[in-house]
Amino acid sequence: MASTGDNTPPVTRRDEGAVAIITLDRPAARNSLSRAMLAALQTALDSVAVEDGIRAVVIAAEGPAFSAGHDLKEITARRADPDGGAAFFAETMAACGAVMQRVVALPQPVVAAVEGIATAAGCQLAASCDLVVAAASAKFCTPGVDIGLFCSTPGVALARAVPRKPAMEMLLLGEMVPAEEAHRMGLVNRVVPAGTALATALELAQRIASRSAVAVRMGKRGFNAQAALPLAEAYEAAGRVMVENLLAEDAAEGIGAFIGKRRPEWRHR
Amino acid sequence: MASTGDNTPPVTRRDEGAVAIITLDRPAARNSLSRAMLAALQTALDSVAVEDGIRAVVIAAEGPAFSAGHDLKEITARRADPDGGAAFFAETMAACGAVMQRVVALPQPVVAAVEGIATAAGCQLAASCDLVVAAASAKFCTPGVDIGLFCSTPGVALARAVPRKPAMEMLLLGEMVPAEEAHRMGLVNRVVPAGTALATALELAQRIASRSAVAVRMGKRGFNAQAALPLAEAYEAAGRVMVENLLAEDAAEGIGAFIGKRRPEWRHR
Amino acid sequence: MASTGDNTPPVTRRDEGAVAIITLDRPAARNSLSRAMLAALQTALDSVAVEDGIRAVVIAAEGPAFSAGHDLKEITARRADPDGGAAFFAETMAACGAVMQRVVALPQPVVAAVEGIATAAGCQLAASCDLVVAAASAKFCTPGVDIGLFCSTPGVALARAVPRKPAMEMLLLGEMVPAEEAHRMGLVNRVVPAGTALATALELAQRIASRSAVAVRMGKRGFNAQAALPLAEAYEAAGRVMVENLLAEDAAEGIGAFIGKRRPEWRHR
Repeated sequence: MASTGDNTPPVTRRDEGAVAIITLDRPAARNSLSRAMLAALQTALDSVAVEDGIRAVVIAAEGPAFSAGHDLKEITARRADPDGGAAFFAETMAACGAVMQRVVALPQPVVAAVEGIATAAGCQLAASCDLVVAAASAKFCTPGVDIGLFCSTPGVALARAVPRKPAMEMLLLGEMVPAEEAHRMGLVNRVVPAGTALATALELAQRIASRSAVAVRMGKRGFNAQAALPLAEAYEAAGRVMVENLLAEDAAEGIGAFIGKRRPEWRHR
Repeated sequence: MASTGDNTPPVTRRDEGAVAIITLDRPAARNSLSRAMLAALQTALDSVAVEDGIRAVVIAAEGPAFSAGHDLKEITARRADPDGGAAFFAETMAACGAVMQRVVALPQPVVAAVEGIATAAGCQLAASCDLVVAAASAKFCTPGVDIGLFCSTPGVALARAVPRKPAMEMLLLGEMVPAEEAHRMGLVNRVVPAGTALATALELAQRIASRSAVAVRMGKRGFNAQAALPLAEAYEAAGRVMVENLLAEDAAEGIGAFIGKRRPEWRHR
Repeated sequence: MASTGDNTPPVTRRDEGAVAIITLDRPAARNSLSRAMLAALQTALDSVAVEDGIRAVVIAAEGPAFSAGHDLKEITARRADPDGGAAFFAETMAACGAVMQRVVALPQPVVAAVEGIATAAGCQLAASCDLVVAAASAKFCTPGVDIGLFCSTPGVALARAVPRKPAMEMLLLGEMVPAEEAHRMGLVNRVVPAGTALATALELAQRIASRSAVAVRMGKRGFNAQAALPLAEAYEAAGRVMVENLLAEDAAEGIGAFIGKRRPEWRHR
């Protein structure tokens, strides 16, 4: 693994129909979230966000690790900065938090395809996706306590995906959590045979992409908005989304097709 | 199914002791939540809310579907309105949200008895109840994406019952979720043999109704109030409920009976 | 059980290395949370909170009950007060809420070791700990409804540990929940053979104590802070914690040791 292919882009993208597959492509570096990797992810997501032709996204990874989290060598090198790294660390956390929030706020649903290990900020990236497909051999872990750096930012994504006690256990003990256990906790939607996570994630994404784009986009945004509100306000917000959705062409087409027992044809605009 | 029995009330009620059983009774229309059905449910719940003699409620349904959600024909017909249906849709969402919030805010605990399918707003109604008993053959589903209408308002109830990722999976994929899986997610309390959901729901409701009405009412209201608050405020609010409850006659009776090893006799006021 | 050992302290403490084991020691009174017990727990926790040498805490109990909740005889005796007990009840709830919030806000992680039953405020105490180890024979229960006193304050801890419907089921039905079921709900982290809960809790606490104290303390406090915030604010807060943690000596040591493939040596300050 002498060469980590520094001249190749750290993130690749290929589309299958209306699904963009964004792949972390630094297997020799265990797809660590270096600043270059974070910037490439941000660029790829920002680009997808404004493409109406893309209706779902898969985040996958090359090699045995989905992602091993932050690039510890890069971090260590900046301790030599005049400020001991403080500015670089703050920028790195801001860059990482921005990528995670971009996933959550992306107009299109995002499905993670996890083979191998997803640790620290790598676990956070998977947890930030709308759905997670994991190989049976995949493992999730927030092992910051082993290196004196509590996984505080991964904990943000974790606390919003799984109940409090399993989240604290992962953060305090730093143990590897097998895919089946992660599924039981609510962190993983589907556990599939090793080597098939991408295929299943793509299948789910294609299914999402086959639906009305306007309904799915309104739905994802609306879901995240209401989930943070008190009940009465949540119903007001979600009710407004429903009315807007009902008045969109695709709902008229979809409901009409359902009543008429025919296949709907979406406008996808 | 030529006749949907339009002259009979869409919702029936019968009481067993202190339990009111409210039954959706439009089996031929799969108990869809038409405006007439929503109005009848609202009336039935408003009535129960002020009856001190009723100490628990069961919501059940006639026929193979618990409820199939909104009445799509009724919605489609109103697209001919001068405003394209906008006002009607907004009123319908308001009416539906009011029923769901009435269930949550009802003084008495509410147990859903689900046989068959509970889809879209039908799933929302079950999810809004305090407890859910489901037949092993029951299925839960938010399939709005299939008709270009994302289940945004059902998502409000779903997001408050199950973790984020299973909720998003139900909303994005629209697949049928069997009762056992719904139990694993936290949406269902008890899975029972097909045909026995009502009997079990009634048994749980009777057990709740056998307790002190004042304690149960304070408890349900207090639980929902504190759950939405930050920890310190939640303890203040719940602490006030405990003191009020301790000063009520039934707590003196109940604690006295416990210490004296006899059965308590509740005042039920 | 004529003597409940009133001259011995209701709570004992012994340390194993950097772990403080706080033990409820009124087995004949089923470790009920009398005012004396609450005061002793508060004192023990306040003391531990300022001891830098203690890096993790175990809460355990002597006898067949972890804790049976409030002391009902003490409560009943105060009904003879001129105010019918109102002031005493309010003080008791305040004292109990303070202990529970002290556990949550303790700088060190807290692991509950539950053998036997943990009922009402006893269940609340376990649920308030960061991690819970339960014997397979342990049972959790909020049976206040049986005595006309809804478990409203235990519901605060329960609502923050398990999903809504299982929490409501425990509170409304008051049934004993076996350890395995409590694990499925998210209330328990580990189920272990009867008689070994303390040994396992101690092992987990030792593992936590073997990590950088500064990272663990920042992490626990930061986790609880961010979990209550909206997503963007949570990332800002957690990002600040990460930067502070990265600038601490232990992170430099831990990351350096990881890169250098050697064991880290923590400062523990």
